[in-house]
Amino acid sequence: MNQDSTHWRTGQQSKADRLERAKRIAPAKLVDSSLAVALLEAVLQPRDRVCLEGNNQKQADFLAQCLAKVNPEKINHLHMLQSVVALPEHTALFEKGIASEIDFSFSGPQGARLANLVTAGKIKINAIHTYLELFGRYFVDLTPNVAFIAAEAADAQGNLYTGPNTEDTPAIVEATAFKNGIVIVQVNDLRDSLPRVDIPADWVDFVIVAPRPNYIEPLFTRDPAQISEIQVLMAMMVIKGIYAEYGVKRLNHGIGFDTAAIELLLPTYAESLGLKGQICTHWALNPHPALIPAIEAGFVQSVHSFGSELGMEKYIAARPDVFFTGADGSMRSNRAFSQAAGHYACDLFIGSTLQIDTFGNSSTATKGRITGFGGAPNMGADARGRRHESAAWLKAGRQAQHKPNHIPRGRKLVVQMVETFREHMAPAFVERLDAWDLADSMGLNNPPVMIYGDDVTHIVTEEGIANLLLCRNDEEREQAIRGVAGYTSVGLGRDQAMVDALRARGVIKRAEDLGISIRQASRDLLAAKTVKDLVRASGGLYNPPSRFRNW
Amino acid sequence: MNQDSTHWRTGQQSKADRLERAKRIAPAKLVDSSLAVALLEAVLQPRDRVCLEGNNQKQADFLAQCLAKVNPEKINHLHMLQSVVALPEHTALFEKGIASEIDFSFSGPQGARLANLVTAGKIKINAIHTYLELFGRYFVDLTPNVAFIAAEAADAQGNLYTGPNTEDTPAIVEATAFKNGIVIVQVNDLRDSLPRVDIPADWVDFVIVAPRPNYIEPLFTRDPAQISEIQVLMAMMVIKGIYAEYGVKRLNHGIGFDTAAIELLLPTYAESLGLKGQICTHWALNPHPALIPAIEAGFVQSVHSFGSELGMEKYIAARPDVFFTGADGSMRSNRAFSQAAGHYACDLFIGSTLQIDTFGNSSTATKGRITGFGGAPNMGADARGRRHESAAWLKAGRQAQHKPNHIPRGRKLVVQMVETFREHMAPAFVERLDAWDLADSMGLNNPPVMIYGDDVTHIVTEEGIANLLLCRNDEEREQAIRGVAGYTSVGLGRDQAMVDALRARGVIKRAEDLGISIRQASRDLLAAKTVKDLVRASGGLYNPPSRFRNW
Repeated sequence: MNQDSTHWRTGQQSKADRLERAKRIAPAKLVDSSLAVALLEAVLQPRDRVCLEGNNQKQADFLAQCLAKVNPEKINHLHMLQSVVALPEHTALFEKGIASEIDFSFSGPQGARLANLVTAGKIKINAIHTYLELFGRYFVDLTPNVAFIAAEAADAQGNLYTGPNTEDTPAIVEATAFKNGIVIVQVNDLRDSLPRVDIPADWVDFVIVAPRPNYIEPLFTRDPAQISEIQVLMAMMVIKGIYAEYGVKRLNHGIGFDTAAIELLLPTYAESLGLKGQICTHWALNPHPALIPAIEAGFVQSVHSFGSELGMEKYIAARPDVFFTGADGSMRSNRAFSQAAGHYACDLFIGSTLQIDTFGNSSTATKGRITGFGGAPNMGADARGRRHESAAWLKAGRQAQHKPNHIPRGRKLVVQMVETFREHMAPAFVERLDAWDLADSMGLNNPPVMIYGDDVTHIVTEEGIANLLLCRNDEEREQAIRGVAGYTSVGLGRDQAMVDALRARGVIKRAEDLGISIRQASRDLLAAKTVKDLVRASGGLYNPPSRFRNW
Repeated sequence: MNQDSTHWRTGQQSKADRLERAKRIAPAKLVDSSLAVALLEAVLQPRDRVCLEGNNQKQADFLAQCLAKVNPEKINHLHMLQSVVALPEHTALFEKGIASEIDFSFSGPQGARLANLVTAGKIKINAIHTYLELFGRYFVDLTPNVAFIAAEAADAQGNLYTGPNTEDTPAIVEATAFKNGIVIVQVNDLRDSLPRVDIPADWVDFVIVAPRPNYIEPLFTRDPAQISEIQVLMAMMVIKGIYAEYGVKRLNHGIGFDTAAIELLLPTYAESLGLKGQICTHWALNPHPALIPAIEAGFVQSVHSFGSELGMEKYIAARPDVFFTGADGSMRSNRAFSQAAGHYACDLFIGSTLQIDTFGNSSTATKGRITGFGGAPNMGADARGRRHESAAWLKAGRQAQHKPNHIPRGRKLVVQMVETFREHMAPAFVERLDAWDLADSMGLNNPPVMIYGDDVTHIVTEEGIANLLLCRNDEEREQAIRGVAGYTSVGLGRDQAMVDALRARGVIKRAEDLGISIRQASRDLLAAKTVKDLVRASGGLYNPPSRFRNW
């Protein structure tokens, strides 16, 4: 037995050794950015598990650039842990032989390069996760040795102010700092005193003022000018056929024009149906600019956010009754808590996808592109651990109850909203997901599915709503899906008699079955038709990024 | 439109008004304990949502006592939010008319009083939650107006050191402090400098040094002397028939002697089967003293904890390779992250229950006692949002796959481990759960089930293991359960021919089918037979509470 020997302190010893090496480069906690690459070479070791912060929005981009500059002969075979693979430097790590293995959640623009790296044998992708799953593993079997994070500002002690874009930082830092790991932060500036403390100084090892402010992508901004009347129609069906039908008060919206259309119809169409206060009062949602008119109309009581959105800072600070803000007035986002809220405290998740099969399985992974799923699998899964009741959850549960002698349980509403054809006339409905081929090329046992069909309760297209809860067997389910799949080959493959029978039973509902005439579905219903309208609705508080300003 | 008027700042204004009233009682952040009741009367308002910290372990007991002393004519109809209802003061709030409504997760010793309060019409129980679900709602529709929390120490600024028992504090404080709420903390002492900062000062409004250190319950300590040979037998079946069978490396154990027996067999029985390094390497688990021999034997690589356990402080500090500890050497627990880890990063949850029905539904809610479920619903539910693969998860998923044309997915292993009769010869297997009656008396739509049958994969009793994954219909499932239900009336109601057929198929496995002879199942196999043995195994580092010292 080695009761209190170094045998049990290999992590502490490793950290001490790394800090000792670092001291030769940078004697203090505050490190000049010109020394960053050397610092990284000093603290890193081959085969380290390295967490590089970056999500859809905030990116530790300077540290990513520095990491891509370390000498691959010294630092190699790193095992990367990342919420998102987004920057060219992220894939460059593998091209250069600095890193060889990755566990991640999402890759947007780098999806094709990731696929190429797999083909070239330069990367081992262990798994694609949903965010909260990856965070969970940071505390079990994927605890980082070194974490690179981004904050708005630090003080002299190293306390961090993450401001509105706190995002993944608390989860990453806690897992690293409390298991002998090293935390290095890039900040935009040093301040004598911080507006508030988001991360305590003693959780942080090194602070580097980056040459440029960290990159933030305004990913959740949708220009209302690009919303089509088809999308208005679908949004009307969702509001009347699902939100009003179940009384959905607590929810999350995915990213996209489809759901932006819903947000913009709340103060107009939904209000005209008398739904104010009855639906959409509590949200787990980034501060979507498209939500401004609904907030101003008094539709929204509370919004907790995963991250922030560029340009929304002043508006959020002026609406502290709605958003979670600190004593300094700016927002505190937190992806881990917002994902827990999205999973457990919301009655509905609605999002879009690239492909849906005849079982209702959907995926954004298509041929030649390894993307990922972000928060969708967590929020688009029935929360089987949930126990509290709400009207929406109980009603969905009753509809799903097939066998009267089984014990009743509630059910989360999980809605997929897609036009039957995507851009370039690619069908959204397919007989077989591309994910099957991707599984082969990535060496996965299971195809990378975003949301499994048995978790989906409704599919909405311009042709109508298919309520999968009411289907009583696989055949009904398949025909309900074909019955809203329009002129895709999946839609054309329907059994018309069965589809008619399902419609008669209310399993499929067309717009007219909901009392919605297609002529009503006009862009005039949108509470804002342009970004400028959103700025106006905000009383000038919303300050959109320049790319969204065309006036 | 009220662009930036007070209309959008009612929460901020309310907080300012409360702080103004408080200033008349206590002008500074540090408040003398003699003024605590007056402070509470100043900051609280009728119908406030009030979060009172306390879980299985750490309790904000002084603040609970103070809250029970406020004048119910001034402060009433509080809506309580609590992880656990544990102290007499918690129920006294309702008896005195200070509080009238509650959302909670678990009630141990106060379960009978809770039931009486319901009968007397003095409490409205909105719902029983699993912890992470309740935390999630703090960010959506149950955000606290005031939170009462407990920490080990504070410094003059109000930075908090929560030490090993961080537990629920970060989740509660974040939800309250960032939505215009007031955070009041009781600490055991004030220090010039803290060993580390767990909660930053600017998240905290008032600090009170309590007259006595906060109460902590050593809830996860099980005396090995009380483990029976039946429990040894069941533990052997679990190790060989489930852990080895699926290669379970990442897991969570419930509380109890059954799972303590498994922990104590790892360095003996499991080691003899060559399973070291093959099973039980990574845990989401409180620091169970029963795990000490397995840790010392090198079985365990990592443990992340929901909370700490009294007496384990020095042992944890001496094993930083295994536990999550801060730079000060003491543990940082965090219930929210450990629950996320338990849900998403573990391949198996095993726990016990009071009642199981013939569908496999289980509940700890029995007649006349409103208890709750703690973390079990979250960890004992198939994590349908999980996407990363592991051998155990894939194998369970393959066994659950009934239809070859369905898309494959993995599956969490959820094991219920019970002796067929509990104490006082109460059968663990019942035709109908008491939860049905409880639902009626509490006004719930659904019976309060701890783990739903369709999430359970295995039931283990002294009679054997029923693998529910391999059952192909409701009838097989029912007979598999009856087939391990022993001499309970559920067990006696079995169809012997079907049970024999299920055994032939390996759906039911008896000890002998696993190559385990009942004579092997001796207490001699336990790596520690007494608490003293545990102390010895720890090299004297484990310091059990006096009630566990009988030498």
